[in-house]
Amino acid sequence: MLNPDNHSAILLIHCRDRKGLVATVTRFLAEHNGNILEIDQHVDEQHGVFFMRAEWDLTSFEIPDQAIAERFKEEVAEPLNLSWQLYFTGRTPRMAVFVSKYAHCLHDVLARYSSGEWKVEIPLIVSNHEDLRPLAEKYDIDYHHIPVTRDTKPEAEHQQLALLREHDVDFIVLARYMQILTGNFVAHYPAGIINIHHSFLPAFPGARPYHSAYRRGVKIIGATSHYVTEELDQGPIIEQDVIHVNHRHSVDDLIRKGRDLEKIVLSRAIWHHLQRKTLVFENRTIVFQ
Amino acid sequence: MLNPDNHSAILLIHCRDRKGLVATVTRFLAEHNGNILEIDQHVDEQHGVFFMRAEWDLTSFEIPDQAIAERFKEEVAEPLNLSWQLYFTGRTPRMAVFVSKYAHCLHDVLARYSSGEWKVEIPLIVSNHEDLRPLAEKYDIDYHHIPVTRDTKPEAEHQQLALLREHDVDFIVLARYMQILTGNFVAHYPAGIINIHHSFLPAFPGARPYHSAYRRGVKIIGATSHYVTEELDQGPIIEQDVIHVNHRHSVDDLIRKGRDLEKIVLSRAIWHHLQRKTLVFENRTIVFQ
Amino acid sequence: MLNPDNHSAILLIHCRDRKGLVATVTRFLAEHNGNILEIDQHVDEQHGVFFMRAEWDLTSFEIPDQAIAERFKEEVAEPLNLSWQLYFTGRTPRMAVFVSKYAHCLHDVLARYSSGEWKVEIPLIVSNHEDLRPLAEKYDIDYHHIPVTRDTKPEAEHQQLALLREHDVDFIVLARYMQILTGNFVAHYPAGIINIHHSFLPAFPGARPYHSAYRRGVKIIGATSHYVTEELDQGPIIEQDVIHVNHRHSVDDLIRKGRDLEKIVLSRAIWHHLQRKTLVFENRTIVFQ
Amino acid sequence: MLNPDNHSAILLIHCRDRKGLVATVTRFLAEHNGNILEIDQHVDEQHGVFFMRAEWDLTSFEIPDQAIAERFKEEVAEPLNLSWQLYFTGRTPRMAVFVSKYAHCLHDVLARYSSGEWKVEIPLIVSNHEDLRPLAEKYDIDYHHIPVTRDTKPEAEHQQLALLREHDVDFIVLARYMQILTGNFVAHYPAGIINIHHSFLPAFPGARPYHSAYRRGVKIIGATSHYVTEELDQGPIIEQDVIHVNHRHSVDDLIRKGRDLEKIVLSRAIWHHLQRKTLVFENRTIVFQ
Repeated sequence: MLNPDNHSAILLIHCRDRKGLVATVTRFLAEHNGNILEIDQHVDEQHGVFFMRAEWDLTSFEIPDQAIAERFKEEVAEPLNLSWQLYFTGRTPRMAVFVSKYAHCLHDVLARYSSGEWKVEIPLIVSNHEDLRPLAEKYDIDYHHIPVTRDTKPEAEHQQLALLREHDVDFIVLARYMQILTGNFVAHYPAGIINIHHSFLPAFPGARPYHSAYRRGVKIIGATSHYVTEELDQGPIIEQDVIHVNHRHSVDDLIRKGRDLEKIVLSRAIWHHLQRKTLVFENRTIVFQ
Repeated sequence: MLNPDNHSAILLIHCRDRKGLVATVTRFLAEHNGNILEIDQHVDEQHGVFFMRAEWDLTSFEIPDQAIAERFKEEVAEPLNLSWQLYFTGRTPRMAVFVSKYAHCLHDVLARYSSGEWKVEIPLIVSNHEDLRPLAEKYDIDYHHIPVTRDTKPEAEHQQLALLREHDVDFIVLARYMQILTGNFVAHYPAGIINIHHSFLPAFPGARPYHSAYRRGVKIIGATSHYVTEELDQGPIIEQDVIHVNHRHSVDDLIRKGRDLEKIVLSRAIWHHLQRKTLVFENRTIVFQ
Repeated sequence: MLNPDNHSAILLIHCRDRKGLVATVTRFLAEHNGNILEIDQHVDEQHGVFFMRAEWDLTSFEIPDQAIAERFKEEVAEPLNLSWQLYFTGRTPRMAVFVSKYAHCLHDVLARYSSGEWKVEIPLIVSNHEDLRPLAEKYDIDYHHIPVTRDTKPEAEHQQLALLREHDVDFIVLARYMQILTGNFVAHYPAGIINIHHSFLPAFPGARPYHSAYRRGVKIIGATSHYVTEELDQGPIIEQDVIHVNHRHSVDDLIRKGRDLEKIVLSRAIWHHLQRKTLVFENRTIVFQ
Repeated sequence: MLNPDNHSAILLIHCRDRKGLVATVTRFLAEHNGNILEIDQHVDEQHGVFFMRAEWDLTSFEIPDQAIAERFKEEVAEPLNLSWQLYFTGRTPRMAVFVSKYAHCLHDVLARYSSGEWKVEIPLIVSNHEDLRPLAEKYDIDYHHIPVTRDTKPEAEHQQLALLREHDVDFIVLARYMQILTGNFVAHYPAGIINIHHSFLPAFPGARPYHSAYRRGVKIIGATSHYVTEELDQGPIIEQDVIHVNHRHSVDDLIRKGRDLEKIVLSRAIWHHLQRKTLVFENRTIVFQ
């Protein structure tokens, strides 16, 4: 039986900007009887680069799903020298969640998962601690405890990568995972690891940002979700938000209030990623609407 | 010498949604060697209506400015049965400002005007009071005092309309103008009169919304900019914003804090209008990005 | 063993405003060797009413806990004709949660509860549907399914009130409970029933506010937490917040985005209530800082 | 004739925290028949320091204005070893504005000044450029052009300080003044120079923060108002705010949108300062409510 969700496809495109790009891509879709559901484009004028996201209904599209990539490549992508990605909304992405001891982001992720807000599978949760196993068990999700020390990190990451492959994981969410991933690990998932950092980056990168925020006497605190790159807290930002605080708020208050920001900002970033609305270029994230 | 601003054109389009619309419009632009600067589209699925805004560089566009409307009509609009508007960024819009006694919105408008933030002409300010004449004079703008009472309103509006015609006014900003316009007046400027209301509509329409907000004990206050229609405070909303308040704030505090919201929200709405990013349909405002 | 939380007391006071009130209350605390941890006062100038919240450390306070009320009454409250409430932070409040079918607010409440963010007991969850029983069971909380129809409402409320008494419940949270409580029920818990409404009240009271918001074309949506009174959605507001939306958002998008607002706003209101920072007067809520 | 504003006094206090401080201060006011209008206190638990702001009506206060300082010193401040400041709302503070070329903050300051929103005198505007003289002249405020180069800075500051003394200036607002003040200059106005920086500090201190924000791909931009200290952009923060941006916004868009933040955030900081609601301790600003 056909699920309506099986019926759309998404193209993410970027290339050197020039005339006629929108016309060429949309003509390809129109000529094969595709009904565009959403289209959004952007030109980075500084770099002269064109970006586009197009989503179209496959119901009466005349190219069968399995042939679309080939036909698009031949008819559009190669002639125009496009970089492109093709997704089908009918395929449910598989997401791994990495956690340490803080529960709030995991709670929020699992609540959305279990209520069907997101179209996603969570085949496993990975942690360097045992603390959140009971929470994972409430939702019947495999929980893998892989301790990490400075010395065992390479071996631990090796185990993690094996698990991710085994579970056919598409992308990873670091839901307050308190370990720094190596460049080697990150290289396996380019623009595929979403972190939440508990400050409005680039302010207060690294450890204990709420303590630093308190000391600096800021009047806002924030949270930042970004794709992980090799450099700590330097990756392309997907989503940020802040709330107002004042001199009455202790560090504990900042931590408490910040938790709400962290979980909401992380979940918004996951939403954008799941909708295939993100495209990374030059360490900036385009978030299509 | 050519001003770069003289070189782009904007099309606002809406029609019944169907396949191939983006392709057809963008092909028209591409075939005549137009470089699309920005394109945005939207489908109202409830009404089955397609909306689009396209802005393109005229520098090497092969159809001369004065012929674009005709050619677009023949080649695209009539065959597809589109509703459309065409604007040239080279033409500076002419805006009238209506005020009563409150100065803050007028101050904000004139500051932006005088510093060149907006590409707009302000040929005249109209008021039912004399109070703001000195402010208008600081900026050398004609100030017309047209008193309005219940009895004289038809005659006053007649005078106002004559002035607007005489000064070739494109659109009107009610910068805390404390008179209700008649349906007859409004009909002369459909989607062409921008009001600022000092509440988050639809809450607290009509008079003294800060007093009502205080009495209701709300924890936020807001401001709403909308196009004026015949029904008071019911027109399509362009922009809204709020700030947090608490039990300590007296009505005077709400009024003081609200002024900042009002001026910023009104100025954002004017900006969208000046960029030709707004399109009204079924009492809702599409604000293209 | 003494828990540090056992060592403070909170006074909420209101009375006709006059000179010397702060001095009298604080002298009472100082004379008995109480160390003030927090003090906040407010004067409603319109009604001429004085409000105060004082929290003080009981560690070296010279009046034993069980005698404080009597002594305060004799030495301060009766001479000054104060209305007052006394709380000890050592006593954990007991909260009932009422739900229907929507899970997001209950998820959020239970996550905070289980992680110890709030000092509260949740002895029971009451619902007019079975849907959320599995969620309650994840957290080992009694779940009482009491169906409600127009005809059975009096009997259903009778059962509910019996359960609340039996479980010694201090206050009730309506976490998207989709039934209107009768005035009789509400009268049992004055300023003791916290609701979350999915709009920025007073806009869009009653049913289906996101549909109304969509139709009106608002550029913000909001959520409001308030104490329940006999009139639907008219009770004193504790907390409100909004987010920006635009013409692209369908009703489903508004509902999805609104869920995040609802849960956060409700949880902030519960936090204020648990801290004994709220005091209702003339249908407005004072939220001490 | 007496102006109601002439009738209140404000005490700002800080000292080592201990029992009875609120009681002692409020008893002093009550015993002399002072009616407290507002009182707010705060304890910095980390440093063990107590802060308090009390404002009281002088109408029937039994100590004459000119004797209050002496009596408070004898009866309260010396016995308790308090640091304190006393202000009378009847005295209008005198504010100098320093500008360079950007007009938006000066526009906003002058609009509020001329409309009577603030109780303040602006005896002079100082600038290192001629550009904003016409704007100053619109409001009949003396405009002093004092060019500053690396070599002439000491002499320029010497001239500035002489002007400030001559005009009896209480505090200085740097309304996008693009020169760094020396430590010597700053030392003349401790917690008396209010700057607006166009980023959410501590992110992007120094020059061209919007360019840096663009490059980093942040999803929010902000503005920060702080008291100037010897270290650039490191002073105690009074007020901050942010707005959301996205990948579509060019550096010019960030600058344009940021202007609105800058002027509002600066004006809020000035408001707090004028209300004598700020107290600086350990590079943090307490902003009493």
